Formats: sequence, C-alpha cells, structure tokens
Amino acid sequence: MDNSQRFSVHYLITARSGSEAVKLAEDIAIEQTAEMPPDAIPESIRQSSTGKVVICKQAGKKNLYETVISYPLAVAGDELSQCLNMIFGNISLKPGIRISGIGWHSLDRIFPGPYWGIGGIRDKLNIHHRPLSCSALKPVGLSNSQLANRCYQMAKGGVDIIKDDHGLVNQSSAPFHDRVVTCMAAIEKAADETGKRTAYFPNITGDCFDTWRRYEIAQSLGAFGVLISPQLTGMSIIKSLQDTDPVLPAMAHPTFSGSFVMNKEHGFTPSLYYGDLWRALGADSVIYPNSGGRFSFTENDCEGINNALRQDTSPFRKSFPTPGGGIQRESIGKWIDRYGKDTIFLIGGSLYQHKGGLEVAVREFQDEIEDYG
Amino acid sequence: MDNSQRFSVHYLITARSGSEAVKLAEDIAIEQTAEMPPDAIPESIRQSSTGKVVICKQAGKKNLYETVISYPLAVAGDELSQCLNMIFGNISLKPGIRISGIGWHSLDRIFPGPYWGIGGIRDKLNIHHRPLSCSALKPVGLSNSQLANRCYQMAKGGVDIIKDDHGLVNQSSAPFHDRVVTCMAAIEKAADETGKRTAYFPNITGDCFDTWRRYEIAQSLGAFGVLISPQLTGMSIIKSLQDTDPVLPAMAHPTFSGSFVMNKEHGFTPSLYYGDLWRALGADSVIYPNSGGRFSFTENDCEGINNALRQDTSPFRKSFPTPGGGIQRESIGKWIDRYGKDTIFLIGGSLYQHKGGLEVAVREFQDEIEDYG
Repeated sequence: MDNSQRFSVHYLITARSGSEAVKLAEDIAIEQTAEMPPDAIPESIRQSSTGKVVICKQAGKKNLYETVISYPLAVAGDELSQCLNMIFGNISLKPGIRISGIGWHSLDRIFPGPYWGIGGIRDKLNIHHRPLSCSALKPVGLSNSQLANRCYQMAKGGVDIIKDDHGLVNQSSAPFHDRVVTCMAAIEKAADETGKRTAYFPNITGDCFDTWRRYEIAQSLGAFGVLISPQLTGMSIIKSLQDTDPVLPAMAHPTFSGSFVMNKEHGFTPSLYYGDLWRALGADSVIYPNSGGRFSFTENDCEGINNALRQDTSPFRKSFPTPGGGIQRESIGKWIDRYGKDTIFLIGGSLYQHKGGLEVAVREFQDEIEDYG
Repeated sequence: MDNSQRFSVHYLITARSGSEAVKLAEDIAIEQTAEMPPDAIPESIRQSSTGKVVICKQAGKKNLYETVISYPLAVAGDELSQCLNMIFGNISLKPGIRISGIGWHSLDRIFPGPYWGIGGIRDKLNIHHRPLSCSALKPVGLSNSQLANRCYQMAKGGVDIIKDDHGLVNQSSAPFHDRVVTCMAAIEKAADETGKRTAYFPNITGDCFDTWRRYEIAQSLGAFGVLISPQLTGMSIIKSLQDTDPVLPAMAHPTFSGSFVMNKEHGFTPSLYYGDLWRALGADSVIYPNSGGRFSFTENDCEGINNALRQDTSPFRKSFPTPGGGIQRESIGKWIDRYGKDTIFLIGGSLYQHKGGLEVAVREFQDEIEDYG
C-alpha cells in the first residue's frame, strides 16, 4: 500500500470557543490512531500513522464547529471494523462529537457497497418503473402454518416483497428452516393462482454462526433475499455474505442502532448513518423509521437518508430507501409523491388492521403503488 | 420450554405526566414483541407473546418514571441477540427511554457470563491477594520487532498483563500472527531473566470470521487471553468463543459503544451496560474509561460499574473491572485505595512518557500495585 494514502472524516464539534474546538479536533486525531500523549509518540509514527486536522471552523451555529480529520489508510488495515474504530471508536465515549461526513472514495476497497443495489433488485424482480411494496410477516408467537397463511394472503394481494418481522428468529413457535419452507410454499401456491411470485426475505439475524447457518438455509431453499440487523450481528456481516454464491439481496433493519443517531450533539447524523454508512456496509435496502409514524425522525432526516442512499457521487451501487415504522395505508399516496420511484414502501401493522382482511388490504396498497406515474 | 416463564427489564422513562408514562410503557411492551397496533394482535398472542407493564411509577425526579416490563422468555428463543432486540431493539429509535436494570436470573441460559471470571484469572496467574497491573502495547504503526521490544521492557518491569492497543489488528505494519509470535517470544525472554511470565492479550477484533481466525491463532500459540471489542464484532462473540477448547480469558474493550451510555435520557446506564450486560456477555475483564482521565465518566459511574461486575447476587461469575483511559501513573495509589483489590488497573500512555524509560515506569507502577494491603 502507498503509505501516503488517507481518508477524511467530517465531525461536528460542540465547543465553547474556536481554540477549544481546535484542541478537541487535535485530540480526536490522536485518540483515534496512536492513542498516546503527543510527547510520547515517536516522530516517524506521528508522520505516518496519526490523524491530521485539515479544517476546523465555526459551523453557522454558536458553539458548533466543523472539523475535517484526515486519517492514514494504512492504519485501517483494509478492515471494515478497524475503519469504524478509527472513525468513531474511543471518541464515542466523549460528548459533543457528531460525524457528518466520510470520504468514501478512499474507502471503496474496504467497504463493499451493495452487491445488487436498486438496479439489481429491479432486474431480479423485473419491475423497473414504479416504487416497490413490502409488508412484514408477524407477529412473533404465531406458528409457521399461521405465518404461512398470512404469507399466502399477502401474496394473493399482490405485494412485491414480504419480509419477516425482525423479531422472528428461530423460536420454537416458528423454527427458521421450517418457516422458510412453509412460507415459500404458501407464496408459490399464490403464484400459481395469480401468476406473480412475491419475493420473500426471511430474517437471518442470530448469534454469531447462527446468522451464517440461516443464510445458507435461505440460499439452499431459494429465498429471494434476507433481512439482517447489522447492529446485532456485527457491522461486517454483509461484506462477508457477499463472498458466497449466490449472493442474496440484503435488507438491513435498524433495531438496536438508534443510540447512534438520537443525540443532536453526539454520534452520527441519520443520513450519514443509515444513508452513507449502511449503503457502504453493503445493504441493498435500508429500513428506517419514517417521519409521522411511531418514531421521531423528521421528514428532513428521511429525505437526507433517501438522498444518501441514492446519490450518484458515491463509489457504491445505490441502495433502496425503505421507510417503515408506522406508515398508515391511507397515507401511502402522499409518501409516494414525496419519496418517489426508487423507494420500497414498507407497511406492516396498518394492513393487519383492515376490516376487509389482509388480502384486500394488500391489494389496495399494491394498487396505489402500481398507480405510480 | 414452560411458556409462562418471563424476564423483566427496568426502564427509566421521561414523560410529561403519569398517564403519558403509562402509555409509553405500554407502547414499549408491544413494540418490543408483537410490534403491531394492539387491535390487530390475536388474543392468544397477546396472552402468550407480548410484554406486560408490571410497574410504572414516578422515580423521584419530575418527569422521570420507572417502569418494569415483563417479557415472555419464549420470544427470546434462547438467543442472546434476540434478547437484546427485545430489551432495546426498535425502542432505541425513540427518545426518553433508558434501561436501568435487567432480571438476569431468568436469562442465565441465554447469556453465558464469564468462563474464567475474577477467580479463574487469579488462579491462572497465581496472584490472589492484590490488584493486577496491565499496560497497553502501542502505538499502531510500529513494526512487530519494535512492539516486541516494548513488550520486553514492560515484561522486564514486571507488569502482570500486556494487552494490545485495540487499534492493532492485522495491519501490514504489524501482521497479527507474526505479532503474537514475536511479542510472546519477547515476553518469554524477559521471563527467563526475571522468573515472572507476563500474560499477553492480543487483540483479535476483526471483520466477521477474521475474529475467529485470530482467536484460533492466539489459542494455538498459547496466548494467555484475548482482547475483543464487542460493539465491533457483534455482541454474541464471547459466547461463541466459549464453545472452543481451550477457552481463553476475554478482556472486553468499549470502543464504538459510547453512544449507548452518553445520554442521560436514552440508552443504558453505564453500570448496567458495562457492568451487568458485559459481565452477562461473558467478558472476564471489562475495560472502561476511568473518571478523571480523557473521558467523561464520573467516579459514581465507575463505582457503579465496579459494583455490577463484582456483586454476589448475579447468576454469573464475577468479572474484573479494568479502569483505563488516561490514568496517570502518579495517581495510581489513589485509585487502588478507591477501587480495591479485585481490579485490573490499566495504564498506557502515561508509562510511555516516563523520562527513565518504559521498564522503569512499569517497575514503579508494579511496585505500587504490589504494595497493596
């Protein structure tokens, strides 16, 4: 490796003065690399292996400063987890530091980006000119035959994608292998009747090797894709799955990750975390809690995530924004207008509330999606 | 499994009134299990598979409420990651929810607890009546022979434990396998001269299977223990490593985890997260940023972590509190008085600043540790 290669990270720092901000920025540059008192760092290491403060300036608001720190690529050692460690490792334990940008072009051999992305999923589904619909198979506690019955109704209603609820793992109420077999059979039965085959994404999230075992089962049974919660499995999981054959599209779920984005002066901006970072991790679709539902993101946060997942200047393939978390079936038209074609709209609970039953609810949702444009 | 078994989680909720707190508590109970509008949950599922609010009461401070929610154990499916998903999955995306307690006795077959713990590490080291000393091998960027030279000096100074810096992975400057061989040889040379063999904990944190490969190398080369960053590898890693032979003691590093504890109204209390939870995950030693160093924990936070790692009523073996993050060598006596015997004191940078060199610095540190009692 060329030892002079570097990558940059943008931080928003809360500080009482410009000089305090500069000092904090210099602390970050050392904390995230050599992690030693500056006077104890050998001169050769200071040159080759520590972060450098490139910019530190006031960022509009009082007490808010933007700094750009440039890190030596060699210190990341071509490892995704070590790269995250450099970006936000020890400093995750310091207040007043929020990450707002990462220079991805220097990191395109460490982070994989989506294997399929928006284009690949569209090709695999042969749907190119409209948004996609998705519903969630739930609740946990039902048996596999009860879940399969729900799959059948949703597939009959014509939904494009069914994903497992992220809380369905391998409980004795609905064991994983049998769930995939049974639900796929129900979807196949509906396909025989309607001519349209709904794509199924079982949830493979589990403890350590269990995630892999479930991925291999999903592959061998011919599932369309898989659902993964990266903050539970470890952030490098999707990169590893991309070394298999066939690679299944990965839909990423935000469970257990909220702490990284819920503090305005700490962590990551939502668009950087769910947009840039999860796209870089390799998620072909990123679920996030839509504005106006049960969670607290603003419409601005959501637009930011959408933009980051789809923007052209990234070195990675585009990833499908997948807003969910309490979208009402009655308001879907509004969200289609706002978020546009390259979106997977995820409606779960609201469909189950429909007085006419699940198949009718899904059909109404699907009609709105297919009316696009 | 007996379907009536349950486990409890204590949450601190920020709300404007008691009735709002009750509504939030009921939302949590459903969000973390069935995740559906209440009117869409089948009655059998509501009985068997959703959370129940057991208590919801004001908690001293205005706007702060304590609630206890009881969850069905069957929904956790004997999986550690699914259990974390129930405790703080989707609700990590809602503001004003902080976890302050978990009923571990119902979870002792899902979480492993330490394999060695305080007693096991003491037996393995044959040191029973005093605190332990630990230093960090750094900085990243040095070659393996330079790092080994530092190991030799620290071992000559008599330190009990040397751990890798958590940023040393498998960089081309110091590849993992060769680093372990070279550093262990340096420690062996010092042991031949002093009669005392320092314990070495190489950092095995890496992307997915790389963590395992490094663990197997550490096992085969006879390393004493390993350093792991659970928030980078995935939280179930230590449980998986405990299925191997021999099991190496695991020292856990808090990098990338700060967001879970840095907000007073969100996430986990530090004592629950680094104390209870990381003990439950199986860490034999838990590194945390000590009060008065470069980070922001109060002495109260630190005492809380120490107590949680060592308290008798847990179903798990006790784990070694390992305060670090900027302890000065001059103040070590004070911290020994405060934290007591069952502590591993971690000093890194401050030793490297000593004008007399590393071996002298370590010897002074070690003398203070051995003067205990």
